[in-house]
Amino acid sequence: MLKIPENQVAGHFARNGKLGPLVDGSGRFYKPLQGGDRGCSEVSFYTSFSLDGRIPDHIRRFFPTFYGTELVEASDGSGLKSHLVLEDFTAGRVNPSIMDVKIGSRTWPPQAPEKYIAKCVEKDHGSSSLLLGFRFSGLQFHSINETGFWKPGKKSIQGFSADEVQLVLRNFVSSNTSKELELKPDCAFASVVFGGPTGILSQLLELKAWFEDQTVYHFFSSSIHIMYEKQLALQGKNPRAEIKLIDFAHVVEGRGVIDHNYLGGLCSLIKFVSEILKVTNKECQTNVLPKDAQRDHDMSVNGTYC
Amino acid sequence: MLKIPENQVAGHFARNGKLGPLVDGSGRFYKPLQGGDRGCSEVSFYTSFSLDGRIPDHIRRFFPTFYGTELVEASDGSGLKSHLVLEDFTAGRVNPSIMDVKIGSRTWPPQAPEKYIAKCVEKDHGSSSLLLGFRFSGLQFHSINETGFWKPGKKSIQGFSADEVQLVLRNFVSSNTSKELELKPDCAFASVVFGGPTGILSQLLELKAWFEDQTVYHFFSSSIHIMYEKQLALQGKNPRAEIKLIDFAHVVEGRGVIDHNYLGGLCSLIKFVSEILKVTNKECQTNVLPKDAQRDHDMSVNGTYC
Repeated sequence: MLKIPENQVAGHFARNGKLGPLVDGSGRFYKPLQGGDRGCSEVSFYTSFSLDGRIPDHIRRFFPTFYGTELVEASDGSGLKSHLVLEDFTAGRVNPSIMDVKIGSRTWPPQAPEKYIAKCVEKDHGSSSLLLGFRFSGLQFHSINETGFWKPGKKSIQGFSADEVQLVLRNFVSSNTSKELELKPDCAFASVVFGGPTGILSQLLELKAWFEDQTVYHFFSSSIHIMYEKQLALQGKNPRAEIKLIDFAHVVEGRGVIDHNYLGGLCSLIKFVSEILKVTNKECQTNVLPKDAQRDHDMSVNGTYC
Repeated sequence: MLKIPENQVAGHFARNGKLGPLVDGSGRFYKPLQGGDRGCSEVSFYTSFSLDGRIPDHIRRFFPTFYGTELVEASDGSGLKSHLVLEDFTAGRVNPSIMDVKIGSRTWPPQAPEKYIAKCVEKDHGSSSLLLGFRFSGLQFHSINETGFWKPGKKSIQGFSADEVQLVLRNFVSSNTSKELELKPDCAFASVVFGGPTGILSQLLELKAWFEDQTVYHFFSSSIHIMYEKQLALQGKNPRAEIKLIDFAHVVEGRGVIDHNYLGGLCSLIKFVSEILKVTNKECQTNVLPKDAQRDHDMSVNGTYC
């Protein structure tokens, strides 16, 4: 029994009789093949990638597992349709907070048709991509006190300025996330989500090292999906902070050249994340309190994670 | 007494009554202020950069020293004209081999006028920039046996493919550089020019580390000037391998974002250089000869540098 995914933040949504991805509730994600060349292109990427012996395991884990294609009943009621069957990496997660970040200042391969390039150039100029080297495609931030979450529309987030991006990233790892981002985020979970040997920053840096070297694939209009579980963080448990690369309808061969467009955008994102950790660590250091005060401080939410 | 520089490889040339840069023969380079906003823009970059306390010394050394502006007799006979007075970093060098590499897949700042962007987009598409993240703007390769050198025109080199770029970089550090690059380059000087703690690769990596962090300046249409002296390398002396950043008519403020366009192109260039060193080192390792043969091998030019 396939159903609409709860934690999808970007792309087409299978709602109101529209065509979109489905999940089986036991770990598989069914993505309908996109129209035109894009569907075929994504299938051939997954097929080639899953067989590619040049991809080291510590990098392969950042990609969804590929289970082939399958004809399943489409969400728009149009009958059987070919779907990519992929790992559903939000399966088993409770209220994951998610960011979908489209990487690269340029979202089109140089070989693309002129008309397609023109469309992308316009989108890139109107978004954060050109200036920042990446843009948000989707966000879902859970708050800790209510069952609600903040899930803004794509149009409202893809043109964020550097300051707005920083604010969003700080809110992502805060215990006081507000729906309109109007509060000063406390960055309570910054060190456990972004920091540490298995945190988001470490994972992004591993990915970066691979992109500095690999000349096999160039990824255009592809996203990094960043997620963790706030409830776990709040309980002092491992918050399952994880990145996954998604959306491969515009992957082309590298032909001996690194993917400088992706790498540049990735480094820009890394810089934003590093700055938040740097500031958080500095605040912690300057917040060294006298012994008595320290005890009280330790009991606040801030103190627990700072 | 100002004269035409001997070792200029790119830009406008002060020849045949044209306007171009001049040198005083004792270490200063006079660059006429470019037309339109570009002249002013370059002066204000040099002024701001020379006073900028945020630039660490190990990075500042990669930029030409700035001595202000001065009215001097222009090379085209048009009378006194304002010139940037810069360090002439080829002064005192004998037959330097030089590469001028324009960094970035995009050579225009997002804030530039539409007409200028359109012109640059066309140039970038027609050159290596879009695919490789950089392009050659000028080359001057000395051969070791003759006084001649290879100095191809800009048009013939700026559209080089990945394979051609690799061939050029290999020729740059070879003892058997031929004018038409038709021989198999021996990469005899690869390890002493590209490799080692003070070699080109180390310098590029220092620059890269800075670009991963700095959010002060974004450099568009700016070049890295790479040079060394082949005669010194041949004599087993320090070949004075050095990089210098040049051309700052299109520098804009970073406003809290890294220069992902420059960084991506720089990483692409670094990958090409690293590959040559990797192959050279591997060839050396597999070229381990029996003792007697080794002695003969040591006496060949290859053996000396391999």
